[in-house]
Amino acid sequence: MPGAGSVASGPKVPGASISVDELPLRDNLRGKSAYGAPQLTVPVVLNTNENPHPPSVALIADVAESVRAAAAELHRYPDRDAIALRGKLAEYLTRATGVRLSVENLWAANGSNEILQQLLQAFGGPGRTALGFVPSYSMHPIISDGTTTTWLEAKRNADFSLDVDYAIGEVAARRPDVVFLTSPNNPTGASIPNAGLRAIVDAAPGIVIVDEAYGEFSEQPSAAELIEEFPAKVVVSRTMSKAFAFAGGRLGYLAASPAIVEALQLVRLPYHLSVLTQASAQAALRHGDETLSGVATIIAERKRVVAELAAAGFEVVDSDANFVLFGRFADASASWLRYLDDGVLIRDVGIAAHLRVTIGLRTENDVFLEVSRRLAATDLENG
Amino acid sequence: MPGAGSVASGPKVPGASISVDELPLRDNLRGKSAYGAPQLTVPVVLNTNENPHPPSVALIADVAESVRAAAAELHRYPDRDAIALRGKLAEYLTRATGVRLSVENLWAANGSNEILQQLLQAFGGPGRTALGFVPSYSMHPIISDGTTTTWLEAKRNADFSLDVDYAIGEVAARRPDVVFLTSPNNPTGASIPNAGLRAIVDAAPGIVIVDEAYGEFSEQPSAAELIEEFPAKVVVSRTMSKAFAFAGGRLGYLAASPAIVEALQLVRLPYHLSVLTQASAQAALRHGDETLSGVATIIAERKRVVAELAAAGFEVVDSDANFVLFGRFADASASWLRYLDDGVLIRDVGIAAHLRVTIGLRTENDVFLEVSRRLAATDLENG
Repeated sequence: MPGAGSVASGPKVPGASISVDELPLRDNLRGKSAYGAPQLTVPVVLNTNENPHPPSVALIADVAESVRAAAAELHRYPDRDAIALRGKLAEYLTRATGVRLSVENLWAANGSNEILQQLLQAFGGPGRTALGFVPSYSMHPIISDGTTTTWLEAKRNADFSLDVDYAIGEVAARRPDVVFLTSPNNPTGASIPNAGLRAIVDAAPGIVIVDEAYGEFSEQPSAAELIEEFPAKVVVSRTMSKAFAFAGGRLGYLAASPAIVEALQLVRLPYHLSVLTQASAQAALRHGDETLSGVATIIAERKRVVAELAAAGFEVVDSDANFVLFGRFADASASWLRYLDDGVLIRDVGIAAHLRVTIGLRTENDVFLEVSRRLAATDLENG
Repeated sequence: MPGAGSVASGPKVPGASISVDELPLRDNLRGKSAYGAPQLTVPVVLNTNENPHPPSVALIADVAESVRAAAAELHRYPDRDAIALRGKLAEYLTRATGVRLSVENLWAANGSNEILQQLLQAFGGPGRTALGFVPSYSMHPIISDGTTTTWLEAKRNADFSLDVDYAIGEVAARRPDVVFLTSPNNPTGASIPNAGLRAIVDAAPGIVIVDEAYGEFSEQPSAAELIEEFPAKVVVSRTMSKAFAFAGGRLGYLAASPAIVEALQLVRLPYHLSVLTQASAQAALRHGDETLSGVATIIAERKRVVAELAAAGFEVVDSDANFVLFGRFADASASWLRYLDDGVLIRDVGIAAHLRVTIGLRTENDVFLEVSRRLAATDLENG
């Protein structure tokens, strides 16, 4: 190991002489920036749709003890098929959706982003297309790009709801290999009723991924009901990052026909889920009733935030999720910075005149609403 | 939730009516099987190059307590850039290689497979090529396929060593966007001296990934020495799965120029490393001296196994790693099954007349050698 004396003389960082522009990077990546919301330390963080309730002492203890037990075998590779975890996810999703799902219907990965990437590796890719209805989850086009699947965009209504007849027309005309539907939709908040979902799936020539990341916050039935009718088409993607308050644990999953789950095993990296992930996600599922009891509190707070924003003069988009999109700001980026100056980090999702706020704890929402009332006097369109 | 009474009447598994062949799968995946060594429960498991030494009580406790502390923030997304972990990996690799590396030189992912996938997403992909010298790590062509990078094969010598002049000729003639070098090479075991590595890198038109998954078992210097000279080309990939006895924790990493690390942030999935992974990998690194002290034992056992196999009449390929390739079997697949029948799981890596055995604990190696001596009498070529 070089001694401290050599620090001043040598090059500070090996290879620092070149820049990204000088690398033989793929053309589609040139000039791009890495995805990601700012990770800032401020008093009120309401920008990434996390669950504001911290894990209980009992859950933390269960995670730690489950990891302690699993760690005895850390020198061994994990169960490549994550059978125990998938079985527990099947039990949970059966209870949550009323659709009796089995371990063969479930697949899990390091966050739903990895689930979506695997789906596009299997069913998208070069020469194939994926269609989304924008504005929607910004990772859909990014993961399409990362798997060199051609991204196609269709629109939502002016109020950000989805026009089902229009959607059917787009799907029939453009014949995408993969359709992304989102229910509830991020960043706008509304769900798609299952009758509409069913009609779009029926029209789709390929796979339809119904992204239900915020499903637990919605009263709409899950698209899992459609798996039996459309086994070659319907994939329901879910996450433990939101309602389960497990964003730090990175556990995404899906429900689909056993054949689709089998297909993903052709593209998944072997041993993709660590023993720590498998053990701790099962611990979090054991405490699911307790964690999910906080969902009602979040929904009640959402209704309060929506009402108070409206009373302050904001337009608020209908939401079935744990966030709301609101406006109309004369300059959304400038207003986003004013919230930040007051210690409230929310999200500028790139929709003109709008910002998105995650529903936090009551005290956090109070601070957010106080800043909002102040900004309503100065920052709104035609204000 | 459906009552128990409905179990007999409903469909057993939703969507089970279709098979993978009926899905709109990409053509290159049709008819393929999922990668993976058999995960079997037998007395002596020597098939996936794991470290046979279980984690110490102190390491297990540190992992559990680190996870307990990190779990308090499980409802929050992890540090997307994993700065603390990358800093500790830089410290370790600086000590291990003598090359003073910084946090900007390091990148980490869920196993080195994810590292390799990200590299090919950034520097390979459709219309680009990756060249490997076979037989080598079987995931290289699979990950190339998964990222639709065209896989090119060149050969090794009959003794599985790499002919550097031939390699330079292949690289110059075929001009691959990515070259995979492996030192030590899996599944054959030998390293490439740095002078040879340097000459191949010099000839390469694009990125050269030096896969040092087994680097801690080798006395060769690390290719990290070449980063400063070739900042746009050299990537050294490493893993905590082997020498660090952390296969279950899934932590792969790389060292390269800061520009290459920055490029990977354009393709990595956001928040790919969980708080659990980041915390537990740092715990494992804190116990690195203790864990790595077992490496000398493994090397001593490797020398013993090599000597005893040779004495029993086997040909054994030179190895700098924690495994050895040996033969020559009249029918390697049949002999593999005979080892298994005797409770010893080793690896049929698809090289004619050869099998690969991971160096295990002394008692495990004794059992393996005992079976080997017996099979030497019946299963060898010209036996």
